[in-house]
Amino acid sequence: MQLVTIKDIYRETDRFLNQKVELSGWVRTVRSSKAFGFIEINDGSFFENLQVVFEESLANFAEIGKLTISSALRIQGTLVPSPGAKQPFELKAESIEVLALSAVDYPLQKKRHTFEYLRTIAHLRPRTNTFAAVFRVRSVVAYAIHKFFQEKGYVYVHTPIITGSDAEGAGEMFRVTALDMAKPPKDEAGNLDFSKDFFGRETSLTVSGQLNVETYCMAFRNVYTFGPTFRAENSNTARHAAEFWMIEPEIAFADLHDNMNLAEEMMKFIIQYALDNAPEEMAFFNNFVDKTLFNRLENILSSEFGHITYTEAVGLLEKENANFEYPVHWGIDLQTEHERYLTEKIFKKPVFVSDYPKDIKAFYMRLNEDNKTVAAMDLLVPGVGEIIGGSQREERLEVLQSRMEEFGLNAEDYGWYLDLRKYGGVKHAGYGLGFERVIMYLTGMSNIRDVISFPRTANTCEF
Amino acid sequence: MQLVTIKDIYRETDRFLNQKVELSGWVRTVRSSKAFGFIEINDGSFFENLQVVFEESLANFAEIGKLTISSALRIQGTLVPSPGAKQPFELKAESIEVLALSAVDYPLQKKRHTFEYLRTIAHLRPRTNTFAAVFRVRSVVAYAIHKFFQEKGYVYVHTPIITGSDAEGAGEMFRVTALDMAKPPKDEAGNLDFSKDFFGRETSLTVSGQLNVETYCMAFRNVYTFGPTFRAENSNTARHAAEFWMIEPEIAFADLHDNMNLAEEMMKFIIQYALDNAPEEMAFFNNFVDKTLFNRLENILSSEFGHITYTEAVGLLEKENANFEYPVHWGIDLQTEHERYLTEKIFKKPVFVSDYPKDIKAFYMRLNEDNKTVAAMDLLVPGVGEIIGGSQREERLEVLQSRMEEFGLNAEDYGWYLDLRKYGGVKHAGYGLGFERVIMYLTGMSNIRDVISFPRTANTCEF
Repeated sequence: MQLVTIKDIYRETDRFLNQKVELSGWVRTVRSSKAFGFIEINDGSFFENLQVVFEESLANFAEIGKLTISSALRIQGTLVPSPGAKQPFELKAESIEVLALSAVDYPLQKKRHTFEYLRTIAHLRPRTNTFAAVFRVRSVVAYAIHKFFQEKGYVYVHTPIITGSDAEGAGEMFRVTALDMAKPPKDEAGNLDFSKDFFGRETSLTVSGQLNVETYCMAFRNVYTFGPTFRAENSNTARHAAEFWMIEPEIAFADLHDNMNLAEEMMKFIIQYALDNAPEEMAFFNNFVDKTLFNRLENILSSEFGHITYTEAVGLLEKENANFEYPVHWGIDLQTEHERYLTEKIFKKPVFVSDYPKDIKAFYMRLNEDNKTVAAMDLLVPGVGEIIGGSQREERLEVLQSRMEEFGLNAEDYGWYLDLRKYGGVKHAGYGLGFERVIMYLTGMSNIRDVISFPRTANTCEF
Repeated sequence: MQLVTIKDIYRETDRFLNQKVELSGWVRTVRSSKAFGFIEINDGSFFENLQVVFEESLANFAEIGKLTISSALRIQGTLVPSPGAKQPFELKAESIEVLALSAVDYPLQKKRHTFEYLRTIAHLRPRTNTFAAVFRVRSVVAYAIHKFFQEKGYVYVHTPIITGSDAEGAGEMFRVTALDMAKPPKDEAGNLDFSKDFFGRETSLTVSGQLNVETYCMAFRNVYTFGPTFRAENSNTARHAAEFWMIEPEIAFADLHDNMNLAEEMMKFIIQYALDNAPEEMAFFNNFVDKTLFNRLENILSSEFGHITYTEAVGLLEKENANFEYPVHWGIDLQTEHERYLTEKIFKKPVFVSDYPKDIKAFYMRLNEDNKTVAAMDLLVPGVGEIIGGSQREERLEVLQSRMEEFGLNAEDYGWYLDLRKYGGVKHAGYGLGFERVIMYLTGMSNIRDVISFPRTANTCEF
């Protein structure tokens, strides 16, 4: 008797066909007549279920016929070719042991449930087809990202989650404290005394690891982060969460074009990896969630991504101002409608928009020769708009200092960041990729709450 | 002219010997005489430096001879066999361009610095040999962990960082809030009103992803987490940090022995992976940080780990009570001195201690038949003591409920956790591995502050 998983059976069918095997799993459905019955069983190892046939010769035939959904079983039997058309094989049970009987009020009965309802049972939803597919793809893609960078020799850096700085001012931050909020210590002037807090100062949750990871870039040349980041922003949209994971590569001796090339190569790698390593799940999404999915992904894989400057893009978009809710003119930040028009109507493929006006971008982006734009880039993809944002960083100490002054930043707070420019600071660049946005893009799922195991959003922190 | 990295040159020497190449990197040392000079250059791609020879024929010979440490260069030249014994090859420079001149007050001059001092310049310390080695090994081992689990089909789950529950009561927690701490909202009774906070409730930073990941274990069978966890504990030791990363696998249809087998296989895998994929760094640690390192790691690789129950271990240790600061008797939690005695003196190899008294372990651990002990296990290793802690989980609903009552836990707060037992809850088990502890063990570094890029400890949250 060989112990097997359902994945083993699907992936190495020839090896197990007509063999006696033993497996354990959970009941997805049971139906039975007087003489025989069928169980669809899933053991978590694989997206597809296995069909189990049992007959009245089974000692506990009556008990098995009445099994509740999600009950756990250990089954011994022989894998045989299936007479049915639906699957090429089935397991003919010789013994079925009930390991755990599920209660009759199990919420995931056969009928379809809305995603909204399933969010209220986030601890059970990975047992449904959709969420089993989402979270296996999420896992596979997380690994693809590590594989991509590690095989290129990039060093993975765990940048800090708790931070004493407000980084790039990228967004509202959550405070982290160990003080008694009911009776917080105050100083003589009556102000809150954070010197009494755990870290001896005010601390928050990070919004980006970029500034920290730049320090490692100047040592290891090519580095990346992959960790959680936070925004205390009350934006109740389908694309925003208070807690999400981000990937931030940073490369030295490199400029904006190297940065765009890396982003293009990475996107293609992870798409191909998901298609190759979660084929059943990806087919499920293409069939049941977004019928344009495979076309969309194939289009990315086979395209050379387009390139256009912000200034050129504005020139093209201005001609279409009649079609936009927000008319375009030079100096504005592009809206999703503009981004999608560029990538879907004009380029019909992914496109990098580069060299944005300096006033709408962060202080650390490298000032261009025109003194009006910075070496920033966004990657826009059909169906979504922006999926990556990055820049070449300002490596010239004096320029960086004067940019910080323009932004009203205190140079003392950034001494270590400025040191990177003092001590052999070379050209470098990097970008940020919101991990959940990628998973939404790769699966067709339209709400960020449905690609995070236990989502944290305004007024929601369950489980 | 081929663009190369120093890693390319070391790994594929034959391909580049007597070829013209171009590379960029940072100066580690320069020395020069009237007619020629040497630069040790490092480009971040590899642990070792490359020796560059330059001669007075170079247009900027005088400038190069006076280069400051950490200046960045682009060098074109020919890779030639080296007449010196120290390395087999060197780069004979034909042109050297200064990309960035480092300031003369660069803190990492040639003299040795203490680890304490280097912590104050955590943004520069990865440029030293020791920290370059530490953080490359950290990256390589992080990848090894993903590789180990992914190749077995485990699903990587990002469990939440911000949590509304106090999980297992595993330690003091940091509060997360978006309230104005100077004027927090109060309810009619004068108590803090967390319903006005961002999430509409009190929230904290997670101390463990275990309870959350158990929900995914009951769907995917084999799962793991790898993410940051937090303790607001003012323990100023070399082994504790307020923010650290943890790996928590969880396996279904599995008991404590499966759990121990998995832990043993994983430990061996990641040690072998580090030795194979960071050989220069590991040799550096063995030569300069801990001369017993290779012996210690080889001992782990070649041992079958020992197994002993807590009760048996106490029987053995009691005979040695005269040697201990804290005498042993049944019921106490083992101290590091006892753990090390077991693994170093008695077993002389890694050993699992299992089946601890229920009163010193967490509520979710499976109660044994004796009603006195639980199916817990710790892995003890020579030189450190405990490196992994885990257990089989209590899958029996009634037993779990009565254990929660004993612990004074409110069943309502754990409804979703209890659901896992109601709806097909099978035997399952898991463990936690502190990532920084592993890195300390693999490198011989003795302070956790020296294996975290920007450590967060009581009164320290710099950068």
